[in-house]
Amino acid sequence: MKIAAVRLTEVVVPAKPDSVNSPETDHALHQLAYNGARGFSVQFDAMPKVIIEVITDDGLIGLGESYRGLPLASLEPIARRLIGLDPLALNLQELPLPEGRLYDGFECALVDLVGKRLGVPAHVLLGGRYRDEVTCGHWTGHRTVADAARKAAEGRARGFSCIKFKCDLDDPVAEWCAAIRDACGPAMKVILDPNRRWGTVANTLERARDLAAIGNVLCLEDPIPRWDFDGYRLLRMKQPIPVCMHVSLPYLEMGQMPTDVVQAIRGGAVDMFNLNGGMFAVKRLADTARLADIPMWHGSEIDLGILEASYVHACAAIGNATLPHDIFGRLVREHDLLVEPLVFAENRVRVPTGPGLGVELDRDALARYTSTRQEIAA
Amino acid sequence: MKIAAVRLTEVVVPAKPDSVNSPETDHALHQLAYNGARGFSVQFDAMPKVIIEVITDDGLIGLGESYRGLPLASLEPIARRLIGLDPLALNLQELPLPEGRLYDGFECALVDLVGKRLGVPAHVLLGGRYRDEVTCGHWTGHRTVADAARKAAEGRARGFSCIKFKCDLDDPVAEWCAAIRDACGPAMKVILDPNRRWGTVANTLERARDLAAIGNVLCLEDPIPRWDFDGYRLLRMKQPIPVCMHVSLPYLEMGQMPTDVVQAIRGGAVDMFNLNGGMFAVKRLADTARLADIPMWHGSEIDLGILEASYVHACAAIGNATLPHDIFGRLVREHDLLVEPLVFAENRVRVPTGPGLGVELDRDALARYTSTRQEIAA
Repeated sequence: MKIAAVRLTEVVVPAKPDSVNSPETDHALHQLAYNGARGFSVQFDAMPKVIIEVITDDGLIGLGESYRGLPLASLEPIARRLIGLDPLALNLQELPLPEGRLYDGFECALVDLVGKRLGVPAHVLLGGRYRDEVTCGHWTGHRTVADAARKAAEGRARGFSCIKFKCDLDDPVAEWCAAIRDACGPAMKVILDPNRRWGTVANTLERARDLAAIGNVLCLEDPIPRWDFDGYRLLRMKQPIPVCMHVSLPYLEMGQMPTDVVQAIRGGAVDMFNLNGGMFAVKRLADTARLADIPMWHGSEIDLGILEASYVHACAAIGNATLPHDIFGRLVREHDLLVEPLVFAENRVRVPTGPGLGVELDRDALARYTSTRQEIAA
Repeated sequence: MKIAAVRLTEVVVPAKPDSVNSPETDHALHQLAYNGARGFSVQFDAMPKVIIEVITDDGLIGLGESYRGLPLASLEPIARRLIGLDPLALNLQELPLPEGRLYDGFECALVDLVGKRLGVPAHVLLGGRYRDEVTCGHWTGHRTVADAARKAAEGRARGFSCIKFKCDLDDPVAEWCAAIRDACGPAMKVILDPNRRWGTVANTLERARDLAAIGNVLCLEDPIPRWDFDGYRLLRMKQPIPVCMHVSLPYLEMGQMPTDVVQAIRGGAVDMFNLNGGMFAVKRLADTARLADIPMWHGSEIDLGILEASYVHACAAIGNATLPHDIFGRLVREHDLLVEPLVFAENRVRVPTGPGLGVELDRDALARYTSTRQEIAA
């Protein structure tokens, strides 16, 4: 079996109305530079993603999906290098590809392909599954206080037990959390993710004092710059809310490193991790955290169905993947490009049991969202 | 004054014969992923660079040069965003461009442009110069023992007082250094740069024992992984040779961060720094090191003349830029694409005094090495 072609389809899939910010609080959420613009300047759903199909000479197709903001042209050189390789001869733990942001979409396609060839679900290739369902959280952006409570109540009514907010220094986080407790009761938890924009230990302690009294914050994720491991440790010592660090290998270019997991553990800097970066890399990072008895959840870039399926398989195969995962793409985006979406029951998603990723690409939907495409063959 | 056009010219400029490795030791030197291939698999001089010309509506041209391995297409979106901007209205310390590998080539062009408009050399925009000449080192790759001594003697005869080698765990570094001492005397210093491939403190101590007895090693640069600040500190405590860390912002994607300078100082991890990452960023990093009384030299990617001129201006304007800099592109590559090369006298290069970078693009040479070009206009 040899790889005969790689099909790259660039898509832009908008977010649904009301899924990101309140109209009054609308601004770009993420620090990713895109198309020559700085971070925090382009909304995520305006960025393309690329659906990757790795096709063998006997007609098998492995499905992958890139992270957002990678133009199709950036994937071409890797696609060319795959032509002629035998997927079964590859070490899936460490593929012969450049490390970094481009790796994971191809890893996904190759794992899907090998799983299909062997007739096993992707989580078997990761060692086997710990669970049949994985727990997910609800998610949103920046909101007004009333709108934050409404959005949380909407999630609670669907069965979610946790909602994650993006926030910065100006957001009224204590008011959000109080309004959510009043609307949903204390069992509906909140994750606050300032993406480092609370800046200092002092700013964070000021907010934590009020938040601790309200009592429904699951954790503070990346309140301060991620390199400041001593600052994270101080936050753990000086206030009661758990502290989480997001280690995201797709953000290597923003200074994230796999070794941050080791540094954070060594420094006593975290209570939990949010991890992403490809199936095998996430499992390695999570296994390290597990040795230190630190639980994790899987991060995301608000993805489509293929990449989310890969996350579900990874979460199934990771012992300490016990926190509510950031797997909510279909709740936020118009479509996930799957024929059958991932199956949610309240706050849990079923681990697919079919071969490979166990999902099927919806080619009509794909065509509808395509901006450009290219097929690379021998 | 508005930016009316940006001209991007992609060039490939080969290395001269005998400038990199001995024939017996030939392999790729650098960990940069390129064109879908992993790091340490493509030799640097096979990668393109892009000459950037930022052109105003009144015909002034600012010259910039990208780091290697960035295809022309990756620079296009930034070029488009520059059209219509007034260079004199920009904050040169923090340009409205994405951070990372693409930034510095455009910074270089805009600094050149503003310097030309104001009629001042680039180092004036950086605050002024500490010196009229900056000291540079000689450089080579992996060599056999006899060839290492020959190459060092060749550099010594030209007036250099230091030569830097790339090396890994298999290279006979003690034999190199002993042969160099025999050929050149103890005043010819050696920098050993394993690019982290000595891997462990133990491996490094084993080599340092022999090297310390020889006595001509100026420092060990990046012997072990750069995130292991405790390991660096141990190396300083347990052996006498100075320890250097390379903090290279163009390598953000390999996990380098500006904050590594703070972490290294805080951990007592280094005796000196090798720094690169744009004129203003390098000055900021170096100023931080200076407060801790740590000297630095300027790193490089074995560049052409435009980027090297920007390094010389930065080194002139940095108080603690006192170690032999990695400014040797013309010694290694066939051409620097300048009409008049940077003026070397023994191991020193004169700081240009003309407006902007003070260098002129050799358009005949540019045409000779061009692989592709594009002009972006309003």
